[in-house]
This record gives sequence, C-alpha cells and structure tokens, in this order.
Amino acid sequence: MDPPAISIVSIGTVHSSRTEPTDDDWDRETMVIRLFEDFDESALWGLDAFSHIEVVYAFHLVDSGTVEVGARRPRGNPDWPQVGIFAQRGKNRPNRLGVTTCAVLGVEGRTVTVRGLDAIDGTPVIDIKPYMKEFGPRGPLRQPEWATELMHGYWE
Amino acid sequence: MDPPAISIVSIGTVHSSRTEPTDDDWDRETMVIRLFEDFDESALWGLDAFSHIEVVYAFHLVDSGTVEVGARRPRGNPDWPQVGIFAQRGKNRPNRLGVTTCAVLGVEGRTVTVRGLDAIDGTPVIDIKPYMKEFGPRGPLRQPEWATELMHGYWE
Repeated sequence: MDPPAISIVSIGTVHSSRTEPTDDDWDRETMVIRLFEDFDESALWGLDAFSHIEVVYAFHLVDSGTVEVGARRPRGNPDWPQVGIFAQRGKNRPNRLGVTTCAVLGVEGRTVTVRGLDAIDGTPVIDIKPYMKEFGPRGPLRQPEWATELMHGYWE
Repeated sequence: MDPPAISIVSIGTVHSSRTEPTDDDWDRETMVIRLFEDFDESALWGLDAFSHIEVVYAFHLVDSGTVEVGARRPRGNPDWPQVGIFAQRGKNRPNRLGVTTCAVLGVEGRTVTVRGLDAIDGTPVIDIKPYMKEFGPRGPLRQPEWATELMHGYWE
C-alpha cells in the first residue's frame, strides 16, 4: 500500500542574500520571510513578542531522484559514519522539508526579518511557529561527534 | 496567483496510548513511531546516538474548513490576546503540520520509541530529524506571558 499523499502549499517565500545552497556561514546572510497576499497581516500579530521562530520550508532545488531513503555518510565525508537519513539533517531527504529555529529581528505587515535561517533566496515557506521554551528538548542532550564536527562553522 | 502545491507523503505512523486530541499532560503517554515498510531499517541507523529528535507530523483530524488564516485567541481563552496563527502553535493552522522535539528512548528496526510527542494514535509522520544542540535557539529567549501560561501543564 502506498502511503497517503498530503497536499501542502507554500505560505510565503524567503528573500535572502544567499542564492546558492552552500553549506556553511549562514549567519553572514540577512533574510526576510514574506507571506503571500492571501494572508491578512493579522496572521503575524503578536509574533514580535517572541525572540525566535521555527520555520518549516521546502528544499525546493532538491531533485526527487536524489532523495536518500536509507543510509549515507553526511556530506559524503569519509571521516564520518554511514547514518540513516533520519539521523541526519541533510536536504536530500524524504519530503525535502527543513525546520530551523531563527531569531526574529522585526515584523512589519506580511514580512518577518530574521537572522539564522539556512534557506536560500526563493525558498518556499510552509509554516512559521513561535518558539516557546517549553518546546525545547527536555532532559540532557547527547549527540554523536560527527554531528558536532559538521555543525562547526555552520552558522559562522 | 495561487501558491504552488507541494506533495508530501507520510513516512510512518505514530502509535500512542492517547487516541483523542486533548490539550495537556502529554508526558503521561508512551508512543512509538513506526516507519512504513518502504524504508530500509538503515534509514534509522545511528539515531540512537541522539538524545532527542524533532518530529514533523500532520494534524490529520483537523478539517480544512477550520483552518485559521488570520488571528484568534489561543484555545479561545478570553484571558489571552488575539494573536496571529503564525504566532501560536495551535493545530488549526495552514498546512496543518506539527513539529515537536521529543526524547528518544530506543530504536529497533523501523521503530523509534519516544517520550514527549504530542501526537495521537494514527498520526501520519512526515519527517524525523536528529536534534543537534547547534540547531537550538541562539541568543536569549523571550516569549509572551500567555504562551508560558498555556504551556503550564502541557507536558505534565
């Protein structure tokens, strides 16, 4: 049985100074999320009371033929282990969705200016959720060494 | 212009002791995510090296006619302000997707046992991402009082 398809639409677009999907230094960019005109500005009311948001977006440049459904080395790096696609955050993943927590710099009309969104110019935005501290991880964190190495330099 | 539709599929299902979408006390439940047979078990290799995962899932019981696209009071509570749907995490939202960080208790075959996933039995799972500390919010957190009040009792 094929799993049921779910249809979603983009609610807006990322406008970023980065136009190519390179790996690192995302904090050097500035970016804005602009909601489509279908939405009333009231959809963003009160968002500026939050320091951070979670953004769900589509990795729209990833071709469906390159999606990994098993295991691979993150970034193809031979120094790192073969791990499952659901144990890494790479973009060649089933459903090609990204989720990133970033800082809110300002909200104006249908526009949210953010810092630290790792999405290139033209990226379709699927959802914006306010970050509440209670939704952070509860209990001590643990992650493998390869993940810490990979993330070194990711933001800056 | 209508925004472009994006087609996604569920990758698996939540099996939970909670069958009704009530608001609070989610930590009292136990839940398991089971990937569909299309996926090789290798898709979860290495996931047990992470203490937490982020789960993207569909609020599958929410009727499209009840989706809010402007502002409303969270949970309809008259004590809380009218805020935009993107400034709250309620399930009656465009695209009806949830994102929750929960603790990994174990990984076996195509199954992940978790604690703290606020999704009822039968929920379609869209993605699983490992939680890396570098993907948490950077900088001091700020959130409005209504959000802190709402989250009181959410987990336990």
